[in-house]
Amino acid sequence: MRIALSGASGLIGHAVAKALAGAGHEIVTVGRAPDCAVRVDLATDANLPAGALKGCDALVHAAGVTDEDFADRDAAFAKALRGTSALLGAARDAGVGRLAYFSSAHVYGPLEGRLDEASPVNPLSDYAIAHYAAEQLFRRSARMTGAATLLARPCAVYGMPPSLERFARWTLIPFDFPRQALGGAIVLKSHGSQRRNFVPAEGLGALAGWWLENAASGVTVANAPGKAECTVYEFASLCAKIASGENGRPVAIERPGPAAQDGAPALEYLTRVGGHLPGPSLEEHVRGMVRALGTKASP
Amino acid sequence: MRIALSGASGLIGHAVAKALAGAGHEIVTVGRAPDCAVRVDLATDANLPAGALKGCDALVHAAGVTDEDFADRDAAFAKALRGTSALLGAARDAGVGRLAYFSSAHVYGPLEGRLDEASPVNPLSDYAIAHYAAEQLFRRSARMTGAATLLARPCAVYGMPPSLERFARWTLIPFDFPRQALGGAIVLKSHGSQRRNFVPAEGLGALAGWWLENAASGVTVANAPGKAECTVYEFASLCAKIASGENGRPVAIERPGPAAQDGAPALEYLTRVGGHLPGPSLEEHVRGMVRALGTKASP
Repeated sequence: MRIALSGASGLIGHAVAKALAGAGHEIVTVGRAPDCAVRVDLATDANLPAGALKGCDALVHAAGVTDEDFADRDAAFAKALRGTSALLGAARDAGVGRLAYFSSAHVYGPLEGRLDEASPVNPLSDYAIAHYAAEQLFRRSARMTGAATLLARPCAVYGMPPSLERFARWTLIPFDFPRQALGGAIVLKSHGSQRRNFVPAEGLGALAGWWLENAASGVTVANAPGKAECTVYEFASLCAKIASGENGRPVAIERPGPAAQDGAPALEYLTRVGGHLPGPSLEEHVRGMVRALGTKASP
Repeated sequence: MRIALSGASGLIGHAVAKALAGAGHEIVTVGRAPDCAVRVDLATDANLPAGALKGCDALVHAAGVTDEDFADRDAAFAKALRGTSALLGAARDAGVGRLAYFSSAHVYGPLEGRLDEASPVNPLSDYAIAHYAAEQLFRRSARMTGAATLLARPCAVYGMPPSLERFARWTLIPFDFPRQALGGAIVLKSHGSQRRNFVPAEGLGALAGWWLENAASGVTVANAPGKAECTVYEFASLCAKIASGENGRPVAIERPGPAAQDGAPALEYLTRVGGHLPGPSLEEHVRGMVRALGTKASP
């Protein structure tokens, strides 16, 4: 299959590219990097070059908005709305029959209680609203063209970044906490009692590959959960323990207003589409990050 | 009560202003018109003047995006997102305890089947996505501040425009069809079998007044249905009949590909918040429009 892919240099897109190439698919990268096969800046361009996706069987959009994008809110929404429309317009022009979008668990609103794909949406942050709006643009295209469409809603994604030097997502806890742990202390911005589901990027690659081979008609929402589910504080503790074990030095955890709110709202991040996604365990990820960053920091 | 109101020169806002002033409330108009008490261009300004809503007990936002706004899609989304945020930011600064937003029935997606406030949302058009995004900004403010919040989702709103000369919503069928009928023919863009609920702007004013007096805490969604529910074709027939009766000349109805699809998808636009909203009947509205436009056209 010939598959157009945005975000191939990012955490999810890289894993998707690897999984799809490994399964024998041809990847057509779409983005602003000089080495992309189709050059477009999704934050500013309203269209892809004419015929850009000609001959493609699928479009996988793994370059949705990030938290960092919201440093410029207008630009972030433009990326979510105009960028997604540009991709979908080109996909319609080329008669692309399969669409996939990596959205976010945050479209459900506060991550509390049992959440599966039948749960009502309630996007509250700008980040969540932008992802939900992009999802809806995919739904509209699916309705217009009949393209089989996957909307994946992963929670906290982890995995070894394709390049530690160029990685830009250090505010995400799967990367921030291992890095902080190397410095001897992890500082939480909140009490850390909110629960998160952690999913390996590799598993998202597997999901994309599985779905493209088995694409049902209509729109499929997949929460794409991983096996690990714990509070932010518990994840910090895991990072502290692993970093301490690796380096033989204690790692402190600091948080404002601690145990009072530790009756954390429960979260069960569930799916009706397959089960937990495969990939390295959260422990393996943290150990890998600690080692990679430790090696990098050493002379 | 002192109530900040955007969109006071529009169809809904005008009716709201009339209802609220009639109930003894003080109105603080917000908008770009020279006679507004608080001057702001919601399409471009990121903030209201400092302290703009000081002393206000409520904010009613009746200047959401219109179909016409989407002639410039980027500007329309900017108005929905930045404009709404500007209003809500000022409301938070001023400790405004009641919020109301006039959204759209289109946030439910295709207007088919039984729809009440428990029905899932599925905004598909840009117009619907923008209204839903604005709703969510209201939800977020409500969550942050505890402000009691009304999200009204009217379908086709009718009523005598405050000024026929300055009225800018002639693409809406409650205004377009009576105007076309005066010319002797109503031309439908579609087969016209889609059903619509018609609600008088006056009823929306009554809803706003009732809600402000009885504001429950939390977020209240109100579909705000009117009594009249029929297909677009049936509404055209009503306009033709009334205009013909008024002027003694027949009025034709033209539509592409007629009766084939007349097994129209059913719509019942229901509410769990009160009942049908009061106001002039749809027939009275059409007769009023035909007479007003006929008088205006005559020398």
